[in-house]
Amino acid sequence: MEILERRDAGGIAHLHMNAPERLNALSDEMLAALQAQIDALGQDRDTRVVVISGAGKAFCAGHDLKQMQAGRQAEDGGKAYFADLFGRCASVMSGLTRLPQPVIAQVHGIATAAGCQMVASCDLAVAAEGTRFGVNGVNIGLFCSTPMVALSRNIPRKKAFEMLTTGRFLSTEEAERAGLINKAVPHDQLEAATQELAETLAGKLTAAVKIGKSAFYDQITMGLDEAYAYAGDVMVKNMLWRDTDEGISAFLEKRAPDWAVKTDN
Amino acid sequence: MEILERRDAGGIAHLHMNAPERLNALSDEMLAALQAQIDALGQDRDTRVVVISGAGKAFCAGHDLKQMQAGRQAEDGGKAYFADLFGRCASVMSGLTRLPQPVIAQVHGIATAAGCQMVASCDLAVAAEGTRFGVNGVNIGLFCSTPMVALSRNIPRKKAFEMLTTGRFLSTEEAERAGLINKAVPHDQLEAATQELAETLAGKLTAAVKIGKSAFYDQITMGLDEAYAYAGDVMVKNMLWRDTDEGISAFLEKRAPDWAVKTDN
Amino acid sequence: MEILERRDAGGIAHLHMNAPERLNALSDEMLAALQAQIDALGQDRDTRVVVISGAGKAFCAGHDLKQMQAGRQAEDGGKAYFADLFGRCASVMSGLTRLPQPVIAQVHGIATAAGCQMVASCDLAVAAEGTRFGVNGVNIGLFCSTPMVALSRNIPRKKAFEMLTTGRFLSTEEAERAGLINKAVPHDQLEAATQELAETLAGKLTAAVKIGKSAFYDQITMGLDEAYAYAGDVMVKNMLWRDTDEGISAFLEKRAPDWAVKTDN
Repeated sequence: MEILERRDAGGIAHLHMNAPERLNALSDEMLAALQAQIDALGQDRDTRVVVISGAGKAFCAGHDLKQMQAGRQAEDGGKAYFADLFGRCASVMSGLTRLPQPVIAQVHGIATAAGCQMVASCDLAVAAEGTRFGVNGVNIGLFCSTPMVALSRNIPRKKAFEMLTTGRFLSTEEAERAGLINKAVPHDQLEAATQELAETLAGKLTAAVKIGKSAFYDQITMGLDEAYAYAGDVMVKNMLWRDTDEGISAFLEKRAPDWAVKTDN
Repeated sequence: MEILERRDAGGIAHLHMNAPERLNALSDEMLAALQAQIDALGQDRDTRVVVISGAGKAFCAGHDLKQMQAGRQAEDGGKAYFADLFGRCASVMSGLTRLPQPVIAQVHGIATAAGCQMVASCDLAVAAEGTRFGVNGVNIGLFCSTPMVALSRNIPRKKAFEMLTTGRFLSTEEAERAGLINKAVPHDQLEAATQELAETLAGKLTAAVKIGKSAFYDQITMGLDEAYAYAGDVMVKNMLWRDTDEGISAFLEKRAPDWAVKTDN
Repeated sequence: MEILERRDAGGIAHLHMNAPERLNALSDEMLAALQAQIDALGQDRDTRVVVISGAGKAFCAGHDLKQMQAGRQAEDGGKAYFADLFGRCASVMSGLTRLPQPVIAQVHGIATAAGCQMVASCDLAVAAEGTRFGVNGVNIGLFCSTPMVALSRNIPRKKAFEMLTTGRFLSTEEAERAGLINKAVPHDQLEAATQELAETLAGKLTAAVKIGKSAFYDQITMGLDEAYAYAGDVMVKNMLWRDTDEGISAFLEKRAPDWAVKTDN
């Protein structure tokens, strides 16, 4: 059994975290496996959508606390190890945002601390009803400062601040209302609903989804004029693709487009 | 029949897009007509509020795809035309944001792609129940990169990303919850509800609304200290107007203010 | 009777605005009293949480308009006084954000103009059902430009713009949905609910809450990479504290932590 299973079908790469006895904790091994897949997916022209899920009772319960405590044995009390660990974790999280493909979190059970950060770092999230979302490190004296980076870019400030300082869990209903997830479905429909969303995305012109995803995060921190200049250049590039010409023509002629979907233009 | 009708009454300029057979597409002609009105309104000291609406079944269905496809006949495959087109469109959209007067979108039927961008670019929006909002260019291979600029500054990230990559429409209820519109009303009350909102704004001290609108967008991207320094200067300027003195005095004396409402201070 | 009463209990400092006959207006005296407490709390290592409330019918109705109008008697028409006043007010508001302790607004009745700004400037807010929230200076010709700074960083753009230009009040339900407050409770439960939230925060490791609060506002305007580098450094620092080691160990050993809660690490 691998700690991170990968299954590919129909242009969709399913990454399945498989350490259920540790609630899929982001151990050194799990982070390395995730980074390896992110690196591979960055070069993978056949994959159009990525789905991340977890085995067992929880999606992901955050860092591996036992491993972190063991890090304190070093001469520097763990300082260098912790700095490296949080750097590797940030690389995985921002790597999800920077992957050319859209990434969907398929969430159930528990998504806490860096597990909640992973939900926030994915582009889209579908959750099973009953899932609990929290950044509850404050309860054990470790404020969720890095999860906060992703969370505070997803939901309103006062809601994020409350979660971070009280450790309170959000229900799926609250998470949906706050903007942390896209939708909640009954647990027995979670896989089907996520698959349906993934297939919807996989059915679009891949190059358009990819250029759009990277533009989304690039433009969001720019001023208005800079963002329009940038997005305008992206649109021009997009318009000049053969498949976009074909897509618009097909629409005007009320027929299905004849796309070379597996090419990256 | 003009492609963009303008009617003025009570300090409110109504711009009515009038190309119903093309779902009020933002053709070269429509964009030119909108830009001309924006330029005129920027100098117009009698207009206190602007309302934008559309004739026929839709508010606006985005760019004129036939015209765009025709642009491909040029020697460069349309590159220069598309760059110019998206520049002109961005100028109209950011022009709505930069107009001194507040702009209200009166939305019904369909607001898609650049039509949805227009809703997002207006300061306020009232919609008829049943209106569908989408940035669905991805369905034909053209990611809505420029509409994304306005949309992603109105609604939470995951909701915006979902709309952009799935092409899914939001209902008016979803649009209201997400922050894309201010309120939804039954279709037969759309005009009256929009007019009521416009009259509410037109009844305020015009100069205060104008200085406040420009300050709103100026300060929103600043750091906290810079924003307070800037907004403090705006408040001082506002306080020193004769009509503001009169407005505060009237409030303290429990009487109606004697404002020179048509002057710009 | 002092204009701002302070009561300390269990590590919680209660600041109670006590000018009910003026709806706790932010007069020169009230601002000075608030600033003095903010300065003191900034150095106060025994206080873990701050609660702000108001006596009488309103939480706070904003600036003291009579005092402001009196300021016009100066040779410069009040210009220097107003600039100083808005500077002092901004210092109080950003001071709440910059206090090391989390600050909870306990809100009832009316929170308007700079009173609404204070709600937005606190980290958390609990409100009594029936409270009305507004930035209604526009009604008397004075746009709420400085309240806008805090408000527009709490709630979606179109909702903020509507409040600012129409002067319309939000109900507690709307305020909660928009993100301006964390929760609404029946009026007779307001004090108990706020106290419960304050005690929840006071029961956490103080140093973790403090390092987290300052990191929250520091990282929120950074780009993603810069934010992760910064938050990673904060996490390393946090991990190396003796009490965090103890907190994690206690969690792994399923026992209560033995924290030196009153130290600041």
